[in-house]
Amino acid sequence: MSEASSNPRSAWLIRVGDGALILGHRMSEWSSRAPTLEEDIALSNLALDLIGQTRALYTRACQIEGGARDENTLAYRRAEHEFRNPLLVEQPNGNFADTMARHLIYSAFALPFYEKLRESNDAEVAGIAARSAREMAYHVRHAGEWIIRLGDGTPESHAKAQAAFDELWPYAPELFEADALDSEMAASGFGVDPSTVREAFDATLAQVLREATLKRPPDGFGLRGGRMGVHSEHIGHLLAQMQYLQRAYPDARW
Amino acid sequence: MSEASSNPRSAWLIRVGDGALILGHRMSEWSSRAPTLEEDIALSNLALDLIGQTRALYTRACQIEGGARDENTLAYRRAEHEFRNPLLVEQPNGNFADTMARHLIYSAFALPFYEKLRESNDAEVAGIAARSAREMAYHVRHAGEWIIRLGDGTPESHAKAQAAFDELWPYAPELFEADALDSEMAASGFGVDPSTVREAFDATLAQVLREATLKRPPDGFGLRGGRMGVHSEHIGHLLAQMQYLQRAYPDARW
Repeated sequence: MSEASSNPRSAWLIRVGDGALILGHRMSEWSSRAPTLEEDIALSNLALDLIGQTRALYTRACQIEGGARDENTLAYRRAEHEFRNPLLVEQPNGNFADTMARHLIYSAFALPFYEKLRESNDAEVAGIAARSAREMAYHVRHAGEWIIRLGDGTPESHAKAQAAFDELWPYAPELFEADALDSEMAASGFGVDPSTVREAFDATLAQVLREATLKRPPDGFGLRGGRMGVHSEHIGHLLAQMQYLQRAYPDARW
Repeated sequence: MSEASSNPRSAWLIRVGDGALILGHRMSEWSSRAPTLEEDIALSNLALDLIGQTRALYTRACQIEGGARDENTLAYRRAEHEFRNPLLVEQPNGNFADTMARHLIYSAFALPFYEKLRESNDAEVAGIAARSAREMAYHVRHAGEWIIRLGDGTPESHAKAQAAFDELWPYAPELFEADALDSEMAASGFGVDPSTVREAFDATLAQVLREATLKRPPDGFGLRGGRMGVHSEHIGHLLAQMQYLQRAYPDARW
């Protein structure tokens, strides 16, 4: 029903969008379940930013493909192995520290990534990237402030924040892994090679973790697969929920 | 733990906020489950407006009380019978037509209500009302456009939209019922008597239903109780979900 895109530019944009969609869905799971009304509103806004970014990226990808699919086909009618998000973003919300650590890791990657993508030779993509970079700067700040508050808080909040980073750190390297498609897109001036933003990520994390009095977990052990379509067990449940309506009623029209 | 407010102004604001909170929670249940990405974003934004209105109303109510409770106590630490929302807003989402009919009925009440409340002799309340009225004008338009699209659509969408109004119409009268507190608040210039906005509501509904080729259900049969703390079975499930975190971990601090 929804084959992988044969157009490399489209396939690349969809991959970027997949990370935003899955994380946006995870964030929306907090909606009206957050610890305070203020944070409920904040988390819902973060989710909305990510779903808005997804929609823009998917829409441009579908234009490039020529219009056989639309953004909803991509979101609701693809199977697990067709999603190319990094494994990080499909990990469950866990506790609040887990969610914020996951969000900081993703955002500290996405901010410099979109900053570079503003130079895309595709004017539409450059525009999407400019807006996304503005949004992700806020995400880095929001997640960073929480991590500092938790890490530099009580012994219990410190321990939970450290445990969150220890658990999620192995998912970070996949964000920066470049394959042939990334290289091709970067070389052509359309896209960005994610490995080139690792330095900016490291700088952000170093600063936040220092202020938070948290230890940067050791590198070297990386969990990967999502960007090739090989996912953790969690994405099946997530898609079952996200796609339920469209799966139960294919092409539903009243 | 959280007694009803002994201050009539505070109690009245909380009652207004309760309607917004419960409907905001219902709307947030659609987050990342909507039929399209565009509508997912739209519904999430409607939810955010309502939760933002709640927060502002609760915060002002707590200031008036003198600060023994805060907005989170009100949202997360009250029991069923302490919530004074109209029964309409706790009704389950049902299908998309049900959600949109419920939303139109509430919004077409809330818009003229907040428009009047802009005249409150409490400057804070007047400011909250001005912002809320601007937001609810958009809600009326969004829900109204959907009802027209569904009602004036296919035979199936028409039937579902009509069924939604037939089912929800008995919950409308409660929105406009004034009790002694409403009269007192209106007389003092602090609040609004909801019965005075019925005419504006009827005009909005008449226009939308006409364009939607839907029939206005007969009046005369009204379900009520929520505004006195007597709720339908649905609110227990809703609160269980919304308050889970705070109930499981009272006064949780890490």
